[in-house]
Amino acid sequence: MKVVVLLSGGLDSVTAFQEALRQHEVLAGLSFDYGAKHHARELPMAAWHCAQAGIPHRIAPLAFIAEEFQSDLLSKGGEIPDGHYEEETMRSTVVPFRNGIMLAIAAGFAESHGAEGVVIAAHSGDHAIYPDCREDFLRPMAEAIREGTYARIELLRPFVSTDKAGIVRRGAAIGIDFARTWSCYKGGEIHCGSCGTCVERREAFLLAGVPDPTIYSETGDLPAKPSDRPSDK
Amino acid sequence: MKVVVLLSGGLDSVTAFQEALRQHEVLAGLSFDYGAKHHARELPMAAWHCAQAGIPHRIAPLAFIAEEFQSDLLSKGGEIPDGHYEEETMRSTVVPFRNGIMLAIAAGFAESHGAEGVVIAAHSGDHAIYPDCREDFLRPMAEAIREGTYARIELLRPFVSTDKAGIVRRGAAIGIDFARTWSCYKGGEIHCGSCGTCVERREAFLLAGVPDPTIYSETGDLPAKPSDRPSDK
Repeated sequence: MKVVVLLSGGLDSVTAFQEALRQHEVLAGLSFDYGAKHHARELPMAAWHCAQAGIPHRIAPLAFIAEEFQSDLLSKGGEIPDGHYEEETMRSTVVPFRNGIMLAIAAGFAESHGAEGVVIAAHSGDHAIYPDCREDFLRPMAEAIREGTYARIELLRPFVSTDKAGIVRRGAAIGIDFARTWSCYKGGEIHCGSCGTCVERREAFLLAGVPDPTIYSETGDLPAKPSDRPSDK
Repeated sequence: MKVVVLLSGGLDSVTAFQEALRQHEVLAGLSFDYGAKHHARELPMAAWHCAQAGIPHRIAPLAFIAEEFQSDLLSKGGEIPDGHYEEETMRSTVVPFRNGIMLAIAAGFAESHGAEGVVIAAHSGDHAIYPDCREDFLRPMAEAIREGTYARIELLRPFVSTDKAGIVRRGAAIGIDFARTWSCYKGGEIHCGSCGTCVERREAFLLAGVPDPTIYSETGDLPAKPSDRPSDK
């Protein structure tokens, strides 16, 4: 199938891209620049994987989000909180309906270029705090994309039954260089190791039993999920 | 309900905006600049209605569509065809998944600004040729927006059971100045009168029995719908 892959440069989307290269005809890797703090670290990773594969890389600028939306993920926003991804505090990093916007643009781009599918790396363990990562959102969005395009474009969700540790295992199996992926929302020189995305990344490698090639500033004990803490039970 | 209204400056969306002013708390009128030939005529109409009502008007720039999408509606595209909207030739004016993209951005903007609903002026007579105008698309898109936002934002479709003549009647009933709306896809000094959107506009005023204040270059006989022609029966 001819596909366009949503490719942020993170661990999940790079794995989805590398798997798609092996299973489909990939027409392009599609990134978005909406003014997030970590874009300067993340987008070059996406560009690198496309260049290696000889696939066009496109970056859709979304200045309107940077200017008009509220989120601590954005350069103009507040500090990125530390702790587990499931913490209530991580809600401040939500960019409202971000996946909806990226998928809609990807669908139009795909239809413009003769693709039959769009690949998104959303996974089963994906953040309870982000409503636009859940299947309850992705299922109707897939239907909207199918019904709203002539080509009846399909939304492919290869990780729908896989958690992040499973993605690490699948990526390791096909030899992905995970050092060429970026997760940290703070967007410093190296991964911080303590924000929600870094905690989730470290946890995924541990659970997968795959060596983590990432260099972190902070490598102390991983915090427990809020739902695993005795006080929450 | 606090709402954001998709406001292109055309006849349908201006009527939806004016009705919303009377029924809801309108937080903003939201337009999109994706490089269409007629934006220079249409967007000032949207701005005028917002200014009159004292409501913020925002224009989301979508340069990526202008550059990367294929459509004769865009400045870089081919000629806008003449004839009835339902003609196969009008398909060249489709901007792939345009309504999906506009709705997704509007949903994120609405969530960022504390709105509870997004209003779109899609109507029951809306173009069989445009898949992203139909209820088969709008229904799952509404569900995706509800499920993908914390506020469970509603997609309001006030014209879902109204055709364009019905919109003209409803607009006339609340005293809308239709001369302050723009339809023509060619984007000349005045409405051409012969492209699909102009034909549809002229037809709507005729069917509604409402005087048409629009100045057209061409006011010859309206072409019949392809489906009404004897040869197609």
